[in-house]
Amino acid sequence: MDNARHTEFIGLKKVVINDGFWTAFMERIRTQVIPYQWEALNDRIPSAEPSYCVRNFKLAAELTHPELDYGVPRDIGHGGCVFQDSDFAKWIEAAAYSLVWRPDPDLEKTLDHTIDIICNAQQSDGYLDTYYIINGMDKRFTNLKDNHELYCFGHLLEGAIAYYEATGKRKLMDALIRYADCVDRNIGPEEGKVHGYPGHELAEMALVRLYAITKDEKHLKLAHYFIDERGKRPYFFALEECRNNGNGSPEDAGEQYHYHQAHKPVREQRVAEGHAVRAMYLYAGMADLARLTNDKELIAACEALFANVSKRQMYITGGIGQSAYGEAFSYDYSLPNDTVYAETCAAIGLAFFARRMSAIAPRGVYADVLEKTLYNGIISGMSLDGKTFFYVNPLEALPEACLKDQRMSHVRIERQKWFGCACCPPNLARIIASLGSYIHSENAGAVYTHLYVGSEAKASPGGTDLTISIETNYPWEGLVNIRFNLKEAARFRYGLRIPGWCRNYALKLNGADAAFTVEDAYAVFNREWKDGDSISAAFDMPVTFVQANPKVREDVGKTAVMRGPVVYCLEEADNGKELCRLHVGQAANISVKYEKALLEGVTLISMTGKREKDWAEDELYRAIEDSAMSAMEDKTLRFIPYYAWTNRSPGEMTVWVNR
Amino acid sequence: MDNARHTEFIGLKKVVINDGFWTAFMERIRTQVIPYQWEALNDRIPSAEPSYCVRNFKLAAELTHPELDYGVPRDIGHGGCVFQDSDFAKWIEAAAYSLVWRPDPDLEKTLDHTIDIICNAQQSDGYLDTYYIINGMDKRFTNLKDNHELYCFGHLLEGAIAYYEATGKRKLMDALIRYADCVDRNIGPEEGKVHGYPGHELAEMALVRLYAITKDEKHLKLAHYFIDERGKRPYFFALEECRNNGNGSPEDAGEQYHYHQAHKPVREQRVAEGHAVRAMYLYAGMADLARLTNDKELIAACEALFANVSKRQMYITGGIGQSAYGEAFSYDYSLPNDTVYAETCAAIGLAFFARRMSAIAPRGVYADVLEKTLYNGIISGMSLDGKTFFYVNPLEALPEACLKDQRMSHVRIERQKWFGCACCPPNLARIIASLGSYIHSENAGAVYTHLYVGSEAKASPGGTDLTISIETNYPWEGLVNIRFNLKEAARFRYGLRIPGWCRNYALKLNGADAAFTVEDAYAVFNREWKDGDSISAAFDMPVTFVQANPKVREDVGKTAVMRGPVVYCLEEADNGKELCRLHVGQAANISVKYEKALLEGVTLISMTGKREKDWAEDELYRAIEDSAMSAMEDKTLRFIPYYAWTNRSPGEMTVWVNR
Repeated sequence: MDNARHTEFIGLKKVVINDGFWTAFMERIRTQVIPYQWEALNDRIPSAEPSYCVRNFKLAAELTHPELDYGVPRDIGHGGCVFQDSDFAKWIEAAAYSLVWRPDPDLEKTLDHTIDIICNAQQSDGYLDTYYIINGMDKRFTNLKDNHELYCFGHLLEGAIAYYEATGKRKLMDALIRYADCVDRNIGPEEGKVHGYPGHELAEMALVRLYAITKDEKHLKLAHYFIDERGKRPYFFALEECRNNGNGSPEDAGEQYHYHQAHKPVREQRVAEGHAVRAMYLYAGMADLARLTNDKELIAACEALFANVSKRQMYITGGIGQSAYGEAFSYDYSLPNDTVYAETCAAIGLAFFARRMSAIAPRGVYADVLEKTLYNGIISGMSLDGKTFFYVNPLEALPEACLKDQRMSHVRIERQKWFGCACCPPNLARIIASLGSYIHSENAGAVYTHLYVGSEAKASPGGTDLTISIETNYPWEGLVNIRFNLKEAARFRYGLRIPGWCRNYALKLNGADAAFTVEDAYAVFNREWKDGDSISAAFDMPVTFVQANPKVREDVGKTAVMRGPVVYCLEEADNGKELCRLHVGQAANISVKYEKALLEGVTLISMTGKREKDWAEDELYRAIEDSAMSAMEDKTLRFIPYYAWTNRSPGEMTVWVNR
Repeated sequence: MDNARHTEFIGLKKVVINDGFWTAFMERIRTQVIPYQWEALNDRIPSAEPSYCVRNFKLAAELTHPELDYGVPRDIGHGGCVFQDSDFAKWIEAAAYSLVWRPDPDLEKTLDHTIDIICNAQQSDGYLDTYYIINGMDKRFTNLKDNHELYCFGHLLEGAIAYYEATGKRKLMDALIRYADCVDRNIGPEEGKVHGYPGHELAEMALVRLYAITKDEKHLKLAHYFIDERGKRPYFFALEECRNNGNGSPEDAGEQYHYHQAHKPVREQRVAEGHAVRAMYLYAGMADLARLTNDKELIAACEALFANVSKRQMYITGGIGQSAYGEAFSYDYSLPNDTVYAETCAAIGLAFFARRMSAIAPRGVYADVLEKTLYNGIISGMSLDGKTFFYVNPLEALPEACLKDQRMSHVRIERQKWFGCACCPPNLARIIASLGSYIHSENAGAVYTHLYVGSEAKASPGGTDLTISIETNYPWEGLVNIRFNLKEAARFRYGLRIPGWCRNYALKLNGADAAFTVEDAYAVFNREWKDGDSISAAFDMPVTFVQANPKVREDVGKTAVMRGPVVYCLEEADNGKELCRLHVGQAANISVKYEKALLEGVTLISMTGKREKDWAEDELYRAIEDSAMSAMEDKTLRFIPYYAWTNRSPGEMTVWVNR
């Protein structure tokens, strides 16, 4: 691959979103999620388990600086999970993105105050993980596999960078650079260092992002080391376990490290395995590094892994991680809809990965997945009032089964207020608050538009100052108007994505037909652009019945209903119980209608389908000649967008419907 | 209900089987299973975990009678599970049945020798459980919930009765009567006794069977107590736990006792819950007691439970226990085919229950289930060479999933040689070896034939000596010839079951049409019978496509193929991989052919169906208009009987096929 296709996504500071769909989500994040999470992190939600996040940092600060007194008794221990710091870091990151979009002096003051506490907890050598600061520094860096030390480091680093980029304030950034240098002094290939890598990946992409700011080679090298050391033999995790417990063997077969994507060198990995969030964070870091270093072998691994995930192990909603056991991938084409895990964080991780693959090369296959996750499997994780959240995102929900069938004991049919392990809500907050940085990417000679979100963005292809404005009612309508404002005419390539779901489209340049080429599902105009030029794209957006590859046994004979990027579902609230008895049949009288008052405004789809008639109570099996199609009656089916399910009365839901 | 309909099944000693289908199974039990199990019980199978069964009894005997020396060191403990004695008891029972059918002096000698050991282990007060004899008698009867003491008692009792009935030898029977009296002295409603009941039911039906021999009211009373005490508040299991552990509360909500069917009084139970084998053994015992005492309330509970199991929670194979978690029922109409448990023992338990319900009243709904379990979900538990066994009987088997999908980690695609907890193989042995006692039942004025098995049976309706002979090629052909031989003409009612699967049939009496009435799916002839009278029944046996109630979401849009009582399946060996892509479609060219050389002789069904064509490698989802029926190709589907699956090369299998 030619690195001429590499681009950088246009950053948050340069993009203002004003979108009929997304603005409401971003406002929920800003006005509901971020304030609520701050209360949660401070243990001020009476009904929720304490988070201990802020308390841990205050305690660590008091222990580090005995003269400080935050009012936390010094003899209590670290609270919450070993990775509790990360919740705090994700909140900082989300709050920072939110400040870019909607400045808020009070929030910024809270952040500055918080950052002071964090920095006070930092050790003289830069170390900054409250679990070990509180429990004993002698044990630090001794259990990289399980104790999430480098995961928390990565999240703090991402938070610090986000806050620096949002405000220009360096205090937390500088602290994290010192921590990065501390990690670098302790872990790496050199003798005397720990030759390890993160048990839960994330630091990789955070370090690449840090390098983009510091240009300090050691930050890039550390990311490189984490990525390339992973999965080599003898296994670091096995050696670590031998050291800690005196059992295990460095000659372990590595089977147990699939969960950590550490069963073989990452460059040799072709199939997504193990814990889905871990996998996505690793692959995203690999893609960052591969693009930055134009590492063709690593790019090839990323491409293969992306293809495996998106073409063999991804739900139609963009959800991934089929198995509740280990919150993990299972195997190709195995996509159960009811027992699925599909963690919100995993879909977010897939969006991270897809965005980074799009930066390696603008290809529809990448941004299609990005779009799919955003409009479906990510936002399904949050209620429409921004107050409750899903960890698990089923494609078929059965209230009775969740109570009585152990296979679905992890599935909820109502979103929850908070979680003991609260990874998903702050992750949702940070991706939605930073949505502006997912729309366009550019390089010296080109700009590409990947997502159709109403917005105004500043770009500079070929050195010119360009403003790209998008107006659209996406995802409810397929018309997208794009306007270019630039001081002087300039020649550059402009590509806009033809969505994979779209079969017919028309593009007009300044209201007229014009020449373009289609490259990897991007319509590319290569011309001199003038101020006021505009492109209008009309993407036909009919109701579409989608089937899955027949290797997906769970979906054979079924259809999903989509319109544009939005996956639809049937809910009990609209269609009654026993959704399994409904069939699309000939799908007559299909109607599409935007309902402003329903579910914060959604486009509904209804049609006349079929329902299997009731059987006698005492019939469990009978010969088919007794029934056949005469056993079906007409039934109006009413589909709502999947992301909006269980925002009314909880009940059954299904994405896949019998044909 | 009128007890005029109650009957007794004609016992094993009065029935000789000579059947084209079953004789082979019985021979496998006699020549393979019983000898192999004897080796296993004696820890002489090199590749298998030791059973410790015989060793435990020898050790218990040595500890009881220090003068004895069986060569077992006295300082080793009890081996195997707490319920290990039951394997031994089931083996004795199966061996005893086998002796009735095929006398074998060597086997009988082995049994006598074994019985001596067992009796030597018995305590002076009659107690006879090796776990407590070895581990300390002070703890006996203190953990009825978990320690299977009364379960082992029940199995020993059944073994003793079977051996007494087979040989007339009383030694073990008398020992077990002493043990029953010991149990009765220790457990019961009177002050000073334990007010408890079995954690794993079985003793109930064993005691009723004992009562039929001893006519000792205390044996019936004890069964009665076990049944009626169960599930009363305060919960005995909770009280027991309080006593043992000082935790738990007698006011427990009882939720945890669903597993043991002890959450409410059995007379109030209407839905089958908890561990499926436990449930079946309880219900069978209830049915025995209800019939014997003509207890209408208890009969009503049995009827409701039977209806719940067979009309809402039973696989088409007669398998029950949908959930691997707890080997248990889950809830009505939830019948997953792939993650199913459907333990062989549970299907056997359902046959026990169905047989006892048939004795309460001859109704097709009962014997249909009995027949269904026998020809499908029970014998699927054993390979056709009698050497390997299934615990779990899936209706859809996916080799890859068994390795990679935790939900199916309990499913095997090849039968195993033996198990640490080896309940299923000896249970199979005892039911198949006693099949003769499942064919006919009688009372003073009537004889009913429930199963069509080639055989000769002695009956005595109205005091006359009657021989009923059956000749048939069932289940491969629907023609059944029944002949009556009797010294003197006698008037009695004779009913033969019209199988539930049969839609057209013709009955001839001595070659001519004759009057009969149909009562609960039995064709009843009420007349004076003469020597040489015969009935020929021609049950039409076409290939039948069966669908499940549309409340069964796993089977919507699918069909099962049956012919007569036999459920068919598709196997990879005949149909290739990815059976989920096959559809029955219009099912043209249906052919039915008996293949003597295949799978020990089976009737094959083949037809022209459809197969979904291959998709491009990189397509996971696509719009349906691209594909539809043009995406199907013709494909010959080859169905074999379900019970015979994975007797060739292991691979995929499915019972339910897309329509």
